[in-house]
Amino acid sequence: MKHALPVTREADFAAWYQSVITEADLAEESGVRGCMVIRPWGYGIWERIQRLLDDRIKATGHENCYFPLFIPLSYFEKEAEHVEGFAKEMAVVTHHRLVADGKGGLVPDPEAKLEEPLVVRPTSETVIGTAFSRWVQSWRDLPVLINQWANVVRWEMRTRMFLRTSEFLWQEGHTAHASADEAREETLKILELYRSFSEDCLAVHVIAGEKPENERFPGAVATYSIEAMMQDGKALQAGTSHFLGTNFAKAQNIRFQNANGELELANTTSWGVSTRMIGGVIMVHGDDDGLRVPPKIAPWQVVIVPMLRDKPEDEEVVAYCRELQAALAGQSALGEPVRALLDLKPAKAANKRWGWVKKGAPILVEVGPRDAAGGNVSVLRRDRLYREDGKLDSAILPRDGFVGDVGATLEAIQTALHDQSVEKLRARITPVDDWAGVEAHFAEGVVNPGWVDVRWVRPTGAELDQVVERLKALKLTIRNAPTAQTGHDEGPCVFTGRPSVERILIGRAY
Amino acid sequence: MKHALPVTREADFAAWYQSVITEADLAEESGVRGCMVIRPWGYGIWERIQRLLDDRIKATGHENCYFPLFIPLSYFEKEAEHVEGFAKEMAVVTHHRLVADGKGGLVPDPEAKLEEPLVVRPTSETVIGTAFSRWVQSWRDLPVLINQWANVVRWEMRTRMFLRTSEFLWQEGHTAHASADEAREETLKILELYRSFSEDCLAVHVIAGEKPENERFPGAVATYSIEAMMQDGKALQAGTSHFLGTNFAKAQNIRFQNANGELELANTTSWGVSTRMIGGVIMVHGDDDGLRVPPKIAPWQVVIVPMLRDKPEDEEVVAYCRELQAALAGQSALGEPVRALLDLKPAKAANKRWGWVKKGAPILVEVGPRDAAGGNVSVLRRDRLYREDGKLDSAILPRDGFVGDVGATLEAIQTALHDQSVEKLRARITPVDDWAGVEAHFAEGVVNPGWVDVRWVRPTGAELDQVVERLKALKLTIRNAPTAQTGHDEGPCVFTGRPSVERILIGRAY
Repeated sequence: MKHALPVTREADFAAWYQSVITEADLAEESGVRGCMVIRPWGYGIWERIQRLLDDRIKATGHENCYFPLFIPLSYFEKEAEHVEGFAKEMAVVTHHRLVADGKGGLVPDPEAKLEEPLVVRPTSETVIGTAFSRWVQSWRDLPVLINQWANVVRWEMRTRMFLRTSEFLWQEGHTAHASADEAREETLKILELYRSFSEDCLAVHVIAGEKPENERFPGAVATYSIEAMMQDGKALQAGTSHFLGTNFAKAQNIRFQNANGELELANTTSWGVSTRMIGGVIMVHGDDDGLRVPPKIAPWQVVIVPMLRDKPEDEEVVAYCRELQAALAGQSALGEPVRALLDLKPAKAANKRWGWVKKGAPILVEVGPRDAAGGNVSVLRRDRLYREDGKLDSAILPRDGFVGDVGATLEAIQTALHDQSVEKLRARITPVDDWAGVEAHFAEGVVNPGWVDVRWVRPTGAELDQVVERLKALKLTIRNAPTAQTGHDEGPCVFTGRPSVERILIGRAY
Repeated sequence: MKHALPVTREADFAAWYQSVITEADLAEESGVRGCMVIRPWGYGIWERIQRLLDDRIKATGHENCYFPLFIPLSYFEKEAEHVEGFAKEMAVVTHHRLVADGKGGLVPDPEAKLEEPLVVRPTSETVIGTAFSRWVQSWRDLPVLINQWANVVRWEMRTRMFLRTSEFLWQEGHTAHASADEAREETLKILELYRSFSEDCLAVHVIAGEKPENERFPGAVATYSIEAMMQDGKALQAGTSHFLGTNFAKAQNIRFQNANGELELANTTSWGVSTRMIGGVIMVHGDDDGLRVPPKIAPWQVVIVPMLRDKPEDEEVVAYCRELQAALAGQSALGEPVRALLDLKPAKAANKRWGWVKKGAPILVEVGPRDAAGGNVSVLRRDRLYREDGKLDSAILPRDGFVGDVGATLEAIQTALHDQSVEKLRARITPVDDWAGVEAHFAEGVVNPGWVDVRWVRPTGAELDQVVERLKALKLTIRNAPTAQTGHDEGPCVFTGRPSVERILIGRAY
């Protein structure tokens, strides 16, 4: 079987990933180091993610705000761990004007040097915490439940589109609460929101759990994540939720008078997901013909391609397609009106077909003069492109039946992609009981080992450092300790042999 | 009559403007020079503007993308006029890491100096043009119709919230076309889109027209604007649309093969509106009690305040309010479901009332135990807050009648605000026939002179400079030459006395 991409997943997963991004017109190099251009199809997926996730964030009582892109250096100096974690990779603005260099070029104007350099936000805890300290005076002002959609910058040395770029787009939630319990509850509520969003909307099955101490957000008391399984067996951390305790409240002076008139520190949380999720969608749902976009986040769910031949009957075909588009837009799927596009761009129909296959539009409808005359449509479902004999599984259907069923069909595609994701994740997690088993599982030459599910006794300090080193030698990291533990029977910790109940997931990761 | 704000428009318009922003919780100083924090009510208005405008931008065939925040210096050097216009006010990133300064603070790491400084985008023509040069090869690739929602930075010396901030949020459209005619048509299509959006959605009447040569966007062949009339008689440029000819295509090398196989330069356009529009909404619709938000862009159109007294009957009142909220959400107004909020925050009902009056929620509903028992609601319309005798015009209405009418009421409020805006604009434009008349109209001591509508012969070069200087002495600028000219009879140009037909608007401006 010949495929639409120049390289298969099996041959070279990294090259395949890059080819999906290029061939599906998702994004491209911008010419600016580490920054990408997100093209309409990629940005359209992000807009769908934004809208669906934003609805859920608002439904849980959070309001959107906007805070400055620039953060004065002094804000960072207040939270020592935080600055330690971020200072290595920040873009720093030092001047506010350019002047001619006398050689036809431009240079920063030495006369326009800032008194205090500004950091381009890598995350906004410090500047939002400063606002919270103004907003929070009394227990009546709590909780504060805020979210922001923004761009952030982390100066990455090695970048990969969507997965790790110097600038990326995300949402960052920030909340302040009267008690540690309430803040912890919020942290877990958002973790669950991310988990269900990922499964319901992205059709990406994930494991929610707590990150080990060494992987915590700088300054956090506890960090939780959702971890997704890529088709090469690596993990992708697709979202994080942090319980910050009073660490940031202390640094930013977020204090309130409680009901008894006493001054207390607030407890804060922060949480975010980013354009990285799109990288996850590619590596979970992509196949050797390109991307497969789950219908809920597809900018266009049905794409209609008229088979035109520069002949008089073209007009009838286009008219038929317009009617079809209007009929589809009147249907609903997955709780919204169906999004149907009529592709009238000047290109060959066969090129369009493969263009939309590579982009991963859930349903492709082709209409030729014979279809139009017969009241039919030729339908290709992206989630099952080929028949068993390797030929394209294109079906000629009566137009009205297709339109009437379109909602159910899109729902079936959404479900099918999710089911496949569940299966792929489950099949690639292996319970292992001892360190020798871990070493064997990840021995050199083992293809696509996935993750192992092991018991451990939570180590601290030097003991944790040793664990991290042992894993690093095998290029492994602890992904998380699942919130829903897979078993509760006692057995030996894989690192120390001590009796233990808690299980963690270990694997290679992006 | 006592008003909710500490200062009236008449007493001090600038102080009044600031007090609306503060008292309506729209935005606040961030502590970062020239940058504001946009609070939930202000950001909610921006989100409404985004959604409504985005729908219109997409409906005209434009697709959203995302381009890098950072622009290499060399990109700017290519378009001489453009860099001349922007180089004075740009934030420049020179380092990508911080290090400890040995005194407990942080400084940019001298080891991490960028080889080529990066400019934080003041606008994206240069970086988007570079992408267009990759995307456009043949006439088949044209037109390219792109839009981006983004933050941009212009280092402003004197800032004012929403009107002029160092960082602001906007949308910037960028298009490339096969011919100058088509690009001019696009420029004017967007001008009309902005005009109708401003009137239909913001209820802000505007005059669309062409800016004079001296006010053109740096690098543009022609710049068009919509100009709104503030209540102090000053103009606010609320949106611009630029025809760039082949200037940027030359600089960025956007060339295509035409149908005859010849290589041609593309013609490009760019256009944008920003968070500045919110400043316009405040200064057009605000009154001495705060903001009045047009229903189409109100985050909440109806706010329900239960009058609670910490007594057992509170529960019934809240239950009644919840039912009311659900009933309202089932209604539709202005083409969308009604957005109704139940305000259950712990605060006194009277404070809430005035809080929502200041915020400008279109309809405020108060419900006490007696209303709940009698099936009534107490309704306050923000667009007509007082009766003629100066008392609050609060009406007790049967609940079901109010709910059934809510769509029509919101539509009436939207229309009333627009009508007032039309009236205020028309009343403040005065036709003037000669320069003496202009001087008299804007003489010192004249309060709220608005704009004058005069004839001119378009000057160029030194003659234009003289016109600009003469106007500057009276603190005036040419706002635009309206696309829909008010008259076609010939008369003397106010500057030269030469016979002329074209009319322009002159006024003071933000």
